[in-house]
Amino acid sequence: MPVGLDDIEQLLPVAGVQLAVAASAMRYQGRNDLLLMQLNKSAVTACSFTRNAFRAAPVIVASEHLNTTNPRYLLINAGNANAGTGEAGLQAAKRCCSSVADIMGVSTSEVLPFSTGVIGEQLETDKITHQLAGLKTSLEDNHWVEAANAIKTTDVVAKGCSEQFKVEGVSVTITGIVKGSGMICPNMATLLSFIATDAKLDKTLLEDCLQRSIADSFNAITVDGDTSTNDCCTLTATGESAVEIRSGDALQLFQDKLGIVMRSLAQSVIRDAEGATKFITVSVEEATDKAEARSVAYTVAQSPLVKTALYASDPNWGRILAAVGRAPIDDLDIAGVSLYLGEICLIKRGQPDENYTEEKGLAETQKDDIELLIRLNRGEASARIWTSDLSEEYVKINADYRS
Amino acid sequence: MPVGLDDIEQLLPVAGVQLAVAASAMRYQGRNDLLLMQLNKSAVTACSFTRNAFRAAPVIVASEHLNTTNPRYLLINAGNANAGTGEAGLQAAKRCCSSVADIMGVSTSEVLPFSTGVIGEQLETDKITHQLAGLKTSLEDNHWVEAANAIKTTDVVAKGCSEQFKVEGVSVTITGIVKGSGMICPNMATLLSFIATDAKLDKTLLEDCLQRSIADSFNAITVDGDTSTNDCCTLTATGESAVEIRSGDALQLFQDKLGIVMRSLAQSVIRDAEGATKFITVSVEEATDKAEARSVAYTVAQSPLVKTALYASDPNWGRILAAVGRAPIDDLDIAGVSLYLGEICLIKRGQPDENYTEEKGLAETQKDDIELLIRLNRGEASARIWTSDLSEEYVKINADYRS
Repeated sequence: MPVGLDDIEQLLPVAGVQLAVAASAMRYQGRNDLLLMQLNKSAVTACSFTRNAFRAAPVIVASEHLNTTNPRYLLINAGNANAGTGEAGLQAAKRCCSSVADIMGVSTSEVLPFSTGVIGEQLETDKITHQLAGLKTSLEDNHWVEAANAIKTTDVVAKGCSEQFKVEGVSVTITGIVKGSGMICPNMATLLSFIATDAKLDKTLLEDCLQRSIADSFNAITVDGDTSTNDCCTLTATGESAVEIRSGDALQLFQDKLGIVMRSLAQSVIRDAEGATKFITVSVEEATDKAEARSVAYTVAQSPLVKTALYASDPNWGRILAAVGRAPIDDLDIAGVSLYLGEICLIKRGQPDENYTEEKGLAETQKDDIELLIRLNRGEASARIWTSDLSEEYVKINADYRS
Repeated sequence: MPVGLDDIEQLLPVAGVQLAVAASAMRYQGRNDLLLMQLNKSAVTACSFTRNAFRAAPVIVASEHLNTTNPRYLLINAGNANAGTGEAGLQAAKRCCSSVADIMGVSTSEVLPFSTGVIGEQLETDKITHQLAGLKTSLEDNHWVEAANAIKTTDVVAKGCSEQFKVEGVSVTITGIVKGSGMICPNMATLLSFIATDAKLDKTLLEDCLQRSIADSFNAITVDGDTSTNDCCTLTATGESAVEIRSGDALQLFQDKLGIVMRSLAQSVIRDAEGATKFITVSVEEATDKAEARSVAYTVAQSPLVKTALYASDPNWGRILAAVGRAPIDDLDIAGVSLYLGEICLIKRGQPDENYTEEKGLAETQKDDIELLIRLNRGEASARIWTSDLSEEYVKINADYRS
């Protein structure tokens, strides 16, 4: 079960965005697995796509369409990733877009396709296109929670986040949803996440805001180190609010609030990670540069031995230090390294701390939320990564589930 | 249980090497956990140590002693790694060496210490030194199998290998033993392995032979990507045989046979990997260079999603391609990649092979020994890595066992 995370119950609507869900009965029976998002004419959208060289058909098509024009519709299906499907898969993704375009009276390139689920099976496009007429008639401002449910695969709970704030007295809303719980190690992009705001931003600024907030949210989480073929994150600005974000305090406020929404979404993925029983924050400080700090944090966060120890609530600092020691740093002096569990110091400059006791360590590792801090004594850069533990349930899910 | 691997029943003695085992009752009760190896006066020994920056005390001490003189005794204990034990741990390792030196009448630097087991606990040296007098009186040529048993920790079976061959009509023997089944991803060194030959080689040539054979044996295996703090491999040449290896055909033959022994030892570690139900060979061909081939092979071999799929005997090529796609190669064109399971082609130049069927794939993945071949269409370099699958049992072992 998710670690300190329940199903979302409500999300704030974003003026200019309507949503509709439906059940295609393609892979999942008796539940919605299709989402159509309608964006208003003035909306601008920024996207970040997976850097996996093996990109799914919808990622390729969405990327092409995005270079052509501003999207008016996002079409998402869960259960089939349309990845590894060759030329037929590309045609299938395009067919879905053109069907939406026909029904909605827009051009095909104004539709972006997104898929998540099993890799290597052809998409049954009929099952999707048959639902489009129904989707068209059920578009509503208030369907964000239903949308978060419709895009789930192995996710246990529906995940989303809203923030509302004021700029010069005028209200601005940001709402986002996300799916993902396995094959999670986004690389310069994310899993599937759709975020919208009613503020007005030009496209360049919007893309900049997305990239800034992604670095410390979706690009700072890992479940299994396996970067997905279908990762996508979209950020749409509908401009329906009277607020235009350009620069200065308003931009800073918007970026801060966007950061809160995106970190919340990213963390909710880890809390709902496959088989997770712990939510683990790995912080690295005193690194030479950010890249070094991140590489140490990721090495620890992806170590199967660290993850199984924390699953067992075992304050096994030897495994943590062993992971730090094999991080890709040529000249690391382990005698300078310090290690903390929450407020408790385990290792001080390479030596076991004299005040440390197993009881103190256990008190920290028995918590659902565990905080690891590693100080390298090399510089002033830092990084923070969120991850889950490794349980028998993770293995069971991934041995059973064909992703 | 180990994959296609039973306890070794006999190993060939190597003239010039005597072995003795004893039970210290330090961590394990009712079994031997101490090994003393005595090398003859003319023996030369080459060692390869872990590149983990967090090196255990015995690794540091053994490395220092080896730089001083030729070792006469190797002392190995199982159950306590003497790692992360600070200055006290270094003193403990040295105390063990000086005790052996006193009893055997050699200098302290002629003794190399090796430890494997739990990280972060101080070594109870008394429990070791109390056994030394008994070890001295029980040294024998024929105790290799007992030795292989004494150095086990989470290993299920004792692992070793012998090869015998003739050079100009004179017999040469190579025998080696190895322990290891978790925290396995040797980096330029290995887990604990002790290999001896009665051939005569000078130290520089012996070191060269060890490094050549290590690249495609111990440095080509991974269980969990976690490089140990205690990895060591020693190769001793006693010179008791009448054969001196210098160059030419004799050197080539020796290197070939050493390669066979070391690959066998390395593969036996994977067959006995924690929780393993499959023995998986990952081959990468048509890479730009060897480093690229290895990086792709390791990315696939360490992917939790690939490993859980193969545990389930699921020919889930999507996960394999997704792992290839996230390997650290900047300009990989997935449209050039081909993928084989045994003799079966799954993906040909980026597209699902038209003759592939799920049944054909299943027939391959249901085997205990699974062969994956990835062709990158980029060059002529290749690499081969051996790994295990990821089972609930791996998680259980590592959540239960304090390593």
